[in-house]
Amino acid sequence: MNLNQLARTVRRATLAGAILTGTMLAQPGATPEFVNTLMPQPAQLTVGNGLLDISHGVAISFDKFHDDRLDNAVTWARERLQEQTGAMMQADAASLVISVDGAGEAVQGLDEDESYSLDVTPQGIHLHAATDVGAMRGLETLLQLVQSGDNSFWLPAVSIQDSPRFRWRGLMIDCSRHFEPVGVIERTLDGMAAVKMNVFHWHLTDDQGFRIESQIYPKLTGLGSDGQYYTQDQAREIVAYARGLGIRVVPEFDMPGHSTSWAVGYPDLASAAGPFTIERRFGVFDVVMDPTRESTYAFLDKFIGEMAAIFPDEYMHIGGDENNGAEWKQNARIQAFMTAHNLKDTAALQAYFNQKLLQILTKHGKKMIGWDEVLNPGLPKDVVVQSWRGFNSLAAGARQGYSGILSAGYYLDHMEPAAAHYRVDPLPANNNLTPEEAARILGGEACSWGEYVDPRTIDSRIWPRTAAIAERLWSPRTVTSEDDMYRRLAVESLRLEELGLTHISQEEASLRALAGTQQIDALRPLMAVLEPVNFDTRSHWSEAHGVTTLTPINQLVDALPPDPPSRHDFGDLMSTYLEDPVAHVEEEAALEDTFQSWVASPELMELMSSSPQLAAALPRAQQLAELGTLGREAVSYLSSGVPAPPGWKAQKLAFLDEAEQPVALTRFTVLKPLRDLVNEVK
Amino acid sequence: MNLNQLARTVRRATLAGAILTGTMLAQPGATPEFVNTLMPQPAQLTVGNGLLDISHGVAISFDKFHDDRLDNAVTWARERLQEQTGAMMQADAASLVISVDGAGEAVQGLDEDESYSLDVTPQGIHLHAATDVGAMRGLETLLQLVQSGDNSFWLPAVSIQDSPRFRWRGLMIDCSRHFEPVGVIERTLDGMAAVKMNVFHWHLTDDQGFRIESQIYPKLTGLGSDGQYYTQDQAREIVAYARGLGIRVVPEFDMPGHSTSWAVGYPDLASAAGPFTIERRFGVFDVVMDPTRESTYAFLDKFIGEMAAIFPDEYMHIGGDENNGAEWKQNARIQAFMTAHNLKDTAALQAYFNQKLLQILTKHGKKMIGWDEVLNPGLPKDVVVQSWRGFNSLAAGARQGYSGILSAGYYLDHMEPAAAHYRVDPLPANNNLTPEEAARILGGEACSWGEYVDPRTIDSRIWPRTAAIAERLWSPRTVTSEDDMYRRLAVESLRLEELGLTHISQEEASLRALAGTQQIDALRPLMAVLEPVNFDTRSHWSEAHGVTTLTPINQLVDALPPDPPSRHDFGDLMSTYLEDPVAHVEEEAALEDTFQSWVASPELMELMSSSPQLAAALPRAQQLAELGTLGREAVSYLSSGVPAPPGWKAQKLAFLDEAEQPVALTRFTVLKPLRDLVNEVK
Repeated sequence: MNLNQLARTVRRATLAGAILTGTMLAQPGATPEFVNTLMPQPAQLTVGNGLLDISHGVAISFDKFHDDRLDNAVTWARERLQEQTGAMMQADAASLVISVDGAGEAVQGLDEDESYSLDVTPQGIHLHAATDVGAMRGLETLLQLVQSGDNSFWLPAVSIQDSPRFRWRGLMIDCSRHFEPVGVIERTLDGMAAVKMNVFHWHLTDDQGFRIESQIYPKLTGLGSDGQYYTQDQAREIVAYARGLGIRVVPEFDMPGHSTSWAVGYPDLASAAGPFTIERRFGVFDVVMDPTRESTYAFLDKFIGEMAAIFPDEYMHIGGDENNGAEWKQNARIQAFMTAHNLKDTAALQAYFNQKLLQILTKHGKKMIGWDEVLNPGLPKDVVVQSWRGFNSLAAGARQGYSGILSAGYYLDHMEPAAAHYRVDPLPANNNLTPEEAARILGGEACSWGEYVDPRTIDSRIWPRTAAIAERLWSPRTVTSEDDMYRRLAVESLRLEELGLTHISQEEASLRALAGTQQIDALRPLMAVLEPVNFDTRSHWSEAHGVTTLTPINQLVDALPPDPPSRHDFGDLMSTYLEDPVAHVEEEAALEDTFQSWVASPELMELMSSSPQLAAALPRAQQLAELGTLGREAVSYLSSGVPAPPGWKAQKLAFLDEAEQPVALTRFTVLKPLRDLVNEVK
Repeated sequence: MNLNQLARTVRRATLAGAILTGTMLAQPGATPEFVNTLMPQPAQLTVGNGLLDISHGVAISFDKFHDDRLDNAVTWARERLQEQTGAMMQADAASLVISVDGAGEAVQGLDEDESYSLDVTPQGIHLHAATDVGAMRGLETLLQLVQSGDNSFWLPAVSIQDSPRFRWRGLMIDCSRHFEPVGVIERTLDGMAAVKMNVFHWHLTDDQGFRIESQIYPKLTGLGSDGQYYTQDQAREIVAYARGLGIRVVPEFDMPGHSTSWAVGYPDLASAAGPFTIERRFGVFDVVMDPTRESTYAFLDKFIGEMAAIFPDEYMHIGGDENNGAEWKQNARIQAFMTAHNLKDTAALQAYFNQKLLQILTKHGKKMIGWDEVLNPGLPKDVVVQSWRGFNSLAAGARQGYSGILSAGYYLDHMEPAAAHYRVDPLPANNNLTPEEAARILGGEACSWGEYVDPRTIDSRIWPRTAAIAERLWSPRTVTSEDDMYRRLAVESLRLEELGLTHISQEEASLRALAGTQQIDALRPLMAVLEPVNFDTRSHWSEAHGVTTLTPINQLVDALPPDPPSRHDFGDLMSTYLEDPVAHVEEEAALEDTFQSWVASPELMELMSSSPQLAAALPRAQQLAELGTLGREAVSYLSSGVPAPPGWKAQKLAFLDEAEQPVALTRFTVLKPLRDLVNEVK
């Protein structure tokens, strides 16, 4: 049994365990058995008796309102159902009746009603929602309910009442540090809709590139984008595409800092003298808008007005983060301005800037959202704060009357496991907020920063961990089982792949490219237990090696997805084994087979030498073989009850420490369980 | 050793063999060794001494002409080189100097000069071409020359003089029976350019759908396309995209038959009374334009004029195929017209139609190309005939003075192996044509008909077999080694994947979707030796099962690529083994390991039961296990020299016959070598 087969066994075991604990609900006295793979889990689900066979198709009708948007959503759901089941519509097709009260908001906002109820009985399906958007959420649930066996596709009899816990469930994509084509954005929106997310936060400008066409200020992209930007038509297309999925688009124009790309074409915006060039490095830079000149606000007024016509959302994100104030401090004219206006520090000057900016936004009918740093008592209460600092910062804002969303804990570029994100709750129990204050916590946003992401790898960085965050933001607070989350995530991952996302296939395609052959079986045991190092480690390495936005994203680390199945599956197996090493013979056998598969084969060593990118990780192959030996020895001591020879344990723990060190920007997923194992040895 | 590892061994062996026979050229006395994976092979290649290290990047400059198109082509080549090598440009980068004489034709035509010369020395690279297009061809060769080892990327010292054998090297895609989005077309064009093809033949209309916007006749797509069509802007974008790659776009508007989708919106075009609906079935239908009415020509005049403004190519394809004449025979008015005009049969009436159509094309500055049936002595000699009938038909045309291109033998939907296409030469040796006649054979076109192809599967149907056809059309006639072709095809396949084509990753993604799990290792041994049945078998099955354009393309057969590596690799292994079963112990061991991997595992049987689509192929799993047993027995008889028991051979041959029968539209790739094996047993 290798690790893949092991994973399946573990998955089935997890699944069986979940049935016993009632998380999944078997139909009383009926076969086949309904396996609940809904993600996010609905607010309420009751399983009824029997099932509805949909092998001959599903005939869909409306008994109340429908419009073009809903028609399109239904067509798409029908196509996906057909793709999934291959069912040709026949006379005895099952029936789905959709009752929708009305279209929903003309411009989707915070108060859009996303609730729905879904009832499946052996006689048919009934979906009810107040709005198009609620119906879309219900259709996604319906698609996730489909069960298959060797003879049919069917739906379990269920009654679902569902609505989101939080109103703002977003994903931010940084398209400045690396540009992402329209097709990438659209397939990401498909994935977001599948897990019921409702805000696409589009980070369109930063030091490294200005990505949205301005017809008033053509040099913004003309000089600030390397030709990689969205035309206004494309932006409108994406807004319309998102609306078709019940997703808002909140554009971000980061200012006054993170603004080098603006200054390339329009140096007068900046607080220091130009000329400026597009920033190629990563980090926090000095370039900052000049808040003392009226010309800055005249520029922003026209620009915001132009953007307001493209992006209908109520909110516009103005960034506001990481202004180091250096250029302000170095500019005598700005210093004089601060003195004259009684602005005691650069934070106060930025608050002044934000006040002026807010007037411009208000003039153009927009509310402001910004990162933590925008929070300032002088701002009105309808400003929304996006916190990269954490819940305490958010709660402090809520106490002052500000609404906020949480992003700390949801940074996808940190390369944390899904479980770590899953544990982060924007509104944890015992939060000490009044109900009124708590209501100001609107939700959260996963953040995909773009330093080390390109169009080929972005799906594998975003999905499927983001589905766990999506569940945290939609499902009741009490849905917290990590084992059950991973079980469902594995299924959701395949559904997302069916939608066209490449988060799974990208790894093998990249490995084929690196190895120069289609025969990469020998690489799999090693690659299955490697993942990218965390963000800090990669950043330090990148700085030391002169990595810029122009450096190709094509190292081994870029092929490896974060949090691969091995991390959870192996940990799970090990902890079960360690509960009773003598009695758990099945787990012992699975461990032994896994350790056996870690022995370095000649084929592996040959493949690892076939390109410089793989060769850089050659030590990992040798380490894995040693880990296999370590594992076999530990299991034999534990299972036999014989103590290890003197020094063995210290030596192995030292080796595990060594294996923690980054090699070629990769790390092992299995070290913690191995450490637990070694520590158990007497 | 499983079949994958086997394939690698065989590949290396093939490679070694090729070096010995001089197809590939080792550098005298130098390591590392240059492995020639160029596809298509160039007209002339001489290997020099030494190599050029490009690990620190390649600095590219022009020493003569360049324009926007060439700049873009160079940028793209630079990006791909960077993606491949991960090289950051450093001060000691290698140098590539590009000398181009001029832009090439304003509208690329048959006489475009595509030749180039490429010289690599340890001092640098020099690429010379008369035109942008020649330079693009040379850049593709350069990218294919890159070699890698564990410490560097490098180019061999070579001198290449290259130009195409044929001037017309096309790929036709049928976008009528199933629509293909713009992104699919563009990535296909990328693939075409990579293997030096130069004509994209765009089959835009057929009974099942009208796929190009007409602003003059909006009902063509309004009623005839289900909303799936290319806007004129998109068509122009694709034409521009293709020009950027040195590829012509020849649009096809199929008439007078295959025209149901025209008649849906404009029933007066047809020869029978309407109304008409979009055809959902496949086959040859009766709907045909009415060639007796002047209104038909008035319509076509305006339509062709509109299309001529979008498609600048010298040629316009008018289809002309498979008109069964039924509606003409059934229409008394048309019969009377034929009598009055002395047109003795429907072929004569179609020739009359073509003459009138030709006048329209000529008026709009276009030359005509059509399928075999258009060939008629009355037509002028600049009409080009595309032959689905074969070389003899083409040669007959050439003798009459007509130019032609070959498509018989290049039908990708026939599900033939690459080797079968590779053997088809548009101008075989001993062709009995005069040089003047031979010059009229312009080349050929691979054809991707759309009955059973959707956007998800199209890459796996087209690539990589098309690279073998591309080589046939570009390289000298003498390049015919199928073993060497397959060796290079395996590498080209990976390069095409790097371009963004999904022909490899689609199989695993589809298998994951069908199995409902990411752990599909247990499926691999079976799936590796299955491929789709041929076109006829699928057509008959589809007709019997009521398959239409609306039937989802999501059966197991759609996951399987035609001509997977197992077909050639296993055949190769078997024939080597059978040369001397006693002496060839290494091949014997490889065969035994392969047969062992064919034993049906419980995991395989479980996965095969997990969805109706896989369950339909369950008998294949059982048959594979039996084939494994058969193989092991045969090898043991042959290797030991012990004769088989009476009746064994007859029984096994009967079983092989049975295994030839289609199951779930799949067939085995390994039966012929197994039959050879059984036949050798005494």
